[in-house]
Amino acid sequence: MVCAALAREQGFEVFALTIDYGQRHRVEIQSARRIAANLAERHIVLPLDLTAFGGSALTADIAVPKDGVGARGEGGVPVTYVPARNTVFLSLALAWAEAAGARDLFVGVNALDYSGYPDCRPEFIAAFQALADKGTRAGSEGQGFTIHAPLQHLTKANIAREAARLGLDPAISHSCYDPAPDGGACGDCDACRLREKGFAEAGLPDATRYAAQ
Amino acid sequence: MVCAALAREQGFEVFALTIDYGQRHRVEIQSARRIAANLAERHIVLPLDLTAFGGSALTADIAVPKDGVGARGEGGVPVTYVPARNTVFLSLALAWAEAAGARDLFVGVNALDYSGYPDCRPEFIAAFQALADKGTRAGSEGQGFTIHAPLQHLTKANIAREAARLGLDPAISHSCYDPAPDGGACGDCDACRLREKGFAEAGLPDATRYAAQ
Repeated sequence: MVCAALAREQGFEVFALTIDYGQRHRVEIQSARRIAANLAERHIVLPLDLTAFGGSALTADIAVPKDGVGARGEGGVPVTYVPARNTVFLSLALAWAEAAGARDLFVGVNALDYSGYPDCRPEFIAAFQALADKGTRAGSEGQGFTIHAPLQHLTKANIAREAARLGLDPAISHSCYDPAPDGGACGDCDACRLREKGFAEAGLPDATRYAAQ
Repeated sequence: MVCAALAREQGFEVFALTIDYGQRHRVEIQSARRIAANLAERHIVLPLDLTAFGGSALTADIAVPKDGVGARGEGGVPVTYVPARNTVFLSLALAWAEAAGARDLFVGVNALDYSGYPDCRPEFIAAFQALADKGTRAGSEGQGFTIHAPLQHLTKANIAREAARLGLDPAISHSCYDPAPDGGACGDCDACRLREKGFAEAGLPDATRYAAQ
């Protein structure tokens, strides 16, 4: 949501892409629809069944860790990592961008208050940009792509502050990996912990709706 | 088919991935099933509706060129190019590979007798390999991936010769971009012309079933 609003602020028309990949927290797609209705010119929700591959707590029958960010040891990537997920997501965004004549891709990855996922790091974004220019007609003809990751070097607190500055309503966004059937956040997964920390450090109200205990 | 057989010959177990992306020549999926039944331990046919993005003669209502390979001018990429398609395909193969514990990806691209697609060229394969090592847990932990493109520097004639050497039946493979409703090849698209040229130059019989004129 913040990433899309920053793109708009820079003067871009937003074509929003959501992947319905079989994620455990599929309720995030409802949030994406509400956000896109506010911020995007077009929105595609593309089904792609990554449960066919499995290998992650988000796409297979593997428990979501609740013991705290980084509790699995320094540098360890948690089981909520979905194999090559952001590579797949950016590839699809690249496909739509090239087909639509767009040259700027925005992705809301964050590499500061995060779970250590390799495909959120600046070196991944740089490698994808290099690939985009080799693997497309537009890139091979010299009209390269720019991958923007405006949240990459922001803390969660600063992302919360940006949301407030941009007049966004965080209550319509969703972070929790393991929501209750009613969509309420669990409060204990990495995504919940990092989100809560962000609002707290920013001194901003946290309107997140938590699941009844 | 030849690429998969070469992987087997090198001692690999083959996990075959076919993308049902809304391609005009969807009949190729039947071929893929027959080939995988012969050569693969596992086969996933993954639906992914790239017609949502369009932008190609293979995924939108745009005519397939029939006027000869390269007829659009030296270096021009024809409208049968599907935006970022091989980036998307390799990303999905990477996702499955990492989830399954595989480290070797094989892709049957060819950059000699081809239509000039940017995402068949060696520099694309090299850029994808660099990305794979940045964008995955395995890669970031030093267990990098190898992208094999064993057909890349073969002529179509040599690919046909390899098929014969490996005891493969080319009649079960499919190349045509614009087959008749009965699956018969058109004989005039780039894929048909390159295939025909391959068998002719190799002096091998061409069992391709053409559509009734």
